[in-house]
Amino acid sequence: MRILGIDPGLNITGYGVIDAVGGVSTLCEAGVIRLPPSKARDLAERLGLLFDEVSLLVREFSPCLLCLEEVYSHALYPRTAILMGHARGVICVAARQAGIPVLSYSAKRIKQSVTGNGNASKIQVQRAVRQVFSLERTPHPPDVADALAAALCYVNGLKDGMNHDQTSALRPGRRSGRISLAQLNQILLRRNA
Amino acid sequence: MRILGIDPGLNITGYGVIDAVGGVSTLCEAGVIRLPPSKARDLAERLGLLFDEVSLLVREFSPCLLCLEEVYSHALYPRTAILMGHARGVICVAARQAGIPVLSYSAKRIKQSVTGNGNASKIQVQRAVRQVFSLERTPHPPDVADALAAALCYVNGLKDGMNHDQTSALRPGRRSGRISLAQLNQILLRRNA
Repeated sequence: MRILGIDPGLNITGYGVIDAVGGVSTLCEAGVIRLPPSKARDLAERLGLLFDEVSLLVREFSPCLLCLEEVYSHALYPRTAILMGHARGVICVAARQAGIPVLSYSAKRIKQSVTGNGNASKIQVQRAVRQVFSLERTPHPPDVADALAAALCYVNGLKDGMNHDQTSALRPGRRSGRISLAQLNQILLRRNA
Repeated sequence: MRILGIDPGLNITGYGVIDAVGGVSTLCEAGVIRLPPSKARDLAERLGLLFDEVSLLVREFSPCLLCLEEVYSHALYPRTAILMGHARGVICVAARQAGIPVLSYSAKRIKQSVTGNGNASKIQVQRAVRQVFSLERTPHPPDVADALAAALCYVNGLKDGMNHDQTSALRPGRRSGRISLAQLNQILLRRNA
């Protein structure tokens, strides 16, 4: 079972591809996607590049699942959180276009899963990831370790039987899609009649 | 000149297509994209549907520009703002995949442009939009009016010579793209040498 973990960001997005067989995880590939700085490219261009890179990654490694860290809404950095939301939305769509389900985990749950402490520091996560994969060096930048930790969180959840499959919750929804102003007016007319 | 205005949201996304010729704007098409509720579909699925609908819209109407309202980071609703960020990111990528530049305007600037008051209410924006396009009824829901107002903001800016072209700010950035952990380690080794 191949799992792609991603730590989303607009400057640096960490990624990690792991293979999980019989409770043993092996690192297949990991690294970062760097986007040009906001001064050089506008937001849409940067998001487009992120979409292309994640799509390439998915095509190249064919994971069966994408694990993503949730955006933490820090009251002090609302703008940063919103921008990270942009990046996260783009990554979700890249996975969905490739037919790959997306699982979201809070930062706390990921830290708890890989270090045993939901409030672990960046360096503690890096060390835990290094140990799991018997890496010669601590994975750096921390975004790489965070991405691998997100993927590990799923594998550890499998062992603990803790992964309630969020993707199986799909039920047919109410009518969705595009509705034109003319149609809206007709609906309004019918309501007013 | 055909302009697509979008008011992004995860439940309802308003859209408006207008044609601007010689300072006169005519309404070509407007409406909303409704997504299934979060209880019925997971976030990635909903974002994928939004991507598909916006891509269809762009293919159908071939606008030369997309005008988007910026996400307002309201301290009281950080989660909503982050989710709107997801939707906005997806819309940016749908436009970019079609080669259409994206312009962002703050809600204040859009309101100022169409009503003359940066703090105008929803209903004031709806009335102003109704007047510009000589509509029989007030456009409803307000998301439709907001989307049309975003597109009008660009057209009004053209008249006033206020549109500094944000898309012309593209300069070649520093190296971007994917960098693997092995490559990162090599860079680290070189740095440490």
